[in-house]
Amino acid sequence: MSSTEARITLAIDVMGGDKGPDELLAGVSKSLAFAPRDLRFFLFGKEDVISSYIERDPLLESSNFIIHHAPEVIGMDEKPIAGIKNKKDSSMSLALQALKEGEADAMLSCGNTGCLMAGGTIRVRPLEGVERPALCTIWPGRERYFTLLDAGANPLPKPFHIVQNAILGSNYARVALGLVRPKVGLLTIGTEEGKGNEMIHEAHSMLKEIDGSILNYAGLIEGFQIFDNVVDVVVCDGFVGNIVLKACESLSKLIGSFLDEELRRNALRKTGALLSKGAFKSLKQRINPEQFGGAPLLGLNRNIIKAHGSSNRNHISGAIKIALDLVQHDMLGQVLEDVRGANEILRPDPMSAQ
Amino acid sequence: MSSTEARITLAIDVMGGDKGPDELLAGVSKSLAFAPRDLRFFLFGKEDVISSYIERDPLLESSNFIIHHAPEVIGMDEKPIAGIKNKKDSSMSLALQALKEGEADAMLSCGNTGCLMAGGTIRVRPLEGVERPALCTIWPGRERYFTLLDAGANPLPKPFHIVQNAILGSNYARVALGLVRPKVGLLTIGTEEGKGNEMIHEAHSMLKEIDGSILNYAGLIEGFQIFDNVVDVVVCDGFVGNIVLKACESLSKLIGSFLDEELRRNALRKTGALLSKGAFKSLKQRINPEQFGGAPLLGLNRNIIKAHGSSNRNHISGAIKIALDLVQHDMLGQVLEDVRGANEILRPDPMSAQ
Repeated sequence: MSSTEARITLAIDVMGGDKGPDELLAGVSKSLAFAPRDLRFFLFGKEDVISSYIERDPLLESSNFIIHHAPEVIGMDEKPIAGIKNKKDSSMSLALQALKEGEADAMLSCGNTGCLMAGGTIRVRPLEGVERPALCTIWPGRERYFTLLDAGANPLPKPFHIVQNAILGSNYARVALGLVRPKVGLLTIGTEEGKGNEMIHEAHSMLKEIDGSILNYAGLIEGFQIFDNVVDVVVCDGFVGNIVLKACESLSKLIGSFLDEELRRNALRKTGALLSKGAFKSLKQRINPEQFGGAPLLGLNRNIIKAHGSSNRNHISGAIKIALDLVQHDMLGQVLEDVRGANEILRPDPMSAQ
Repeated sequence: MSSTEARITLAIDVMGGDKGPDELLAGVSKSLAFAPRDLRFFLFGKEDVISSYIERDPLLESSNFIIHHAPEVIGMDEKPIAGIKNKKDSSMSLALQALKEGEADAMLSCGNTGCLMAGGTIRVRPLEGVERPALCTIWPGRERYFTLLDAGANPLPKPFHIVQNAILGSNYARVALGLVRPKVGLLTIGTEEGKGNEMIHEAHSMLKEIDGSILNYAGLIEGFQIFDNVVDVVVCDGFVGNIVLKACESLSKLIGSFLDEELRRNALRKTGALLSKGAFKSLKQRINPEQFGGAPLLGLNRNIIKAHGSSNRNHISGAIKIALDLVQHDMLGQVLEDVRGANEILRPDPMSAQ
């Protein structure tokens, strides 16, 4: 327990997560290896649970943290808006409140995604000029990682929201993937102009208008190109993005379990699998990289990171690394500037800004 | 060469396909093992190429076939409508013409998907009562295969088209997967009513109206459920379906090449991979089953089957089996009856039928 002086404060929702609070706190503890000295943690959750873990972890015990007792927990099957409104004393709601009041710079949760998106959107204000938040994810590509957004925050976007998503994703790719001029592609069903739908056509022509000045727009891409690293930022609406994300996650689990079944089918295969087990471990790490444990909800005036429900301590520590990077690189400041620039080009008449 | 008396005639576009006409004809030859005696093939393509293959294949030579010379070939990168309109003497155009004129019952092509969909839609008439065709695909699920449609024929459907897709996919699942009452699910981003978008809500309520009488509607499903066999027919619009299909195909290739790279990384892993190579072969067959080599374009008054460009002889033979099954089970007759039934329930006023 320690000083309240700190340059960066991270709010941690300790109660979400399938593996329980201890695994989550172990992730926080792991992050101390790279955390700067002036980092402080706000730990939101049941005080006795958190204290009991900390007593067993001298590293975390000697760090800069404050426990914020939260008697309630939002379950994984609660409905988005109801969950956040009915459980004002939940760890997630109280952590969001700390963000809203400017007491924390970023927040991490492994809890209910719908509640976190709804809560973030309702409680935390959007960045000036941004109309809708977007959930951004990192995916493995053939040569390197890439980002895809929106993964479900806004299932009914207008073309202008898609353009803003491109700016948000581009800035996230700069920080999280260390790219200087990330290439942006708009996901559609055929790369000839005229294919797709009206929203795609409008977003495409707006993106062309801000190409070069605000972002690096590479044009339309198809589903089979997303893993080929033709672009670094894949932009789509939240309906498509959510379905593609969930389908791809499930498919990679399915292939994993088919492979597992096939390798156990006889003694010869089992022996082979034992010899090459390093390959399967590396494959898993390449598909589900621990260093990118979190998906940010972008477009708000504070950083919110959603980690997967099944995150282990390595994923949590990876997500904390990303949260820190976003704050340290002042991603929000850069987004603000880019959004202002794009709005000037695309919306010269402020009266038409909604 | 032989009689023109036949109960079933299949038109084969011999010139499409990445592996060339010989591999395609080898697939036709392979299908003779299960083909009924009264099956006839119309082989559309360059006469010298086809004749040269047939001279080397006594089995095909003694079968019931007619060569239809087609001097032109539609390339894989030609634009949908332009390709089909500019190359009237291509193997694909002439095969479609034979369907249109009722000379063939079904057609198989490995060629340009866009051209085949456009050509099928323009040349072959829709089934009475059906407004738009849909491309239907078969996917591997955890326990068994399932169908997903529309994979891209209609990227801007109205809710009523989605309902018709459900009927089309249901009938296809009956024949291709041998199911009696296939369960239908509508793909969206959250299973609570109210999530998704307006089109999903309208289609959902229409599907509920015809549940029980016309089809077996199980409700809304999310992206992560599609591989879990909660339903047998996943219905979505052609924009989402095309993107999900292509993304999933690319992802499984990506995982395959990651696995391959990892298994070659050192001598120990290579030895292990050699011992368990049967597992990798079985995995590949489970993910990309040869028996379902073709995707039908449903909703037309003739059966059109699109096989993958990279199909080998086994995929071609699998696709021919499906084409035959569709004709022998009179799928079109059953679709016609179901569409009429659904239209009576959902569109009692014929004046509102468009």
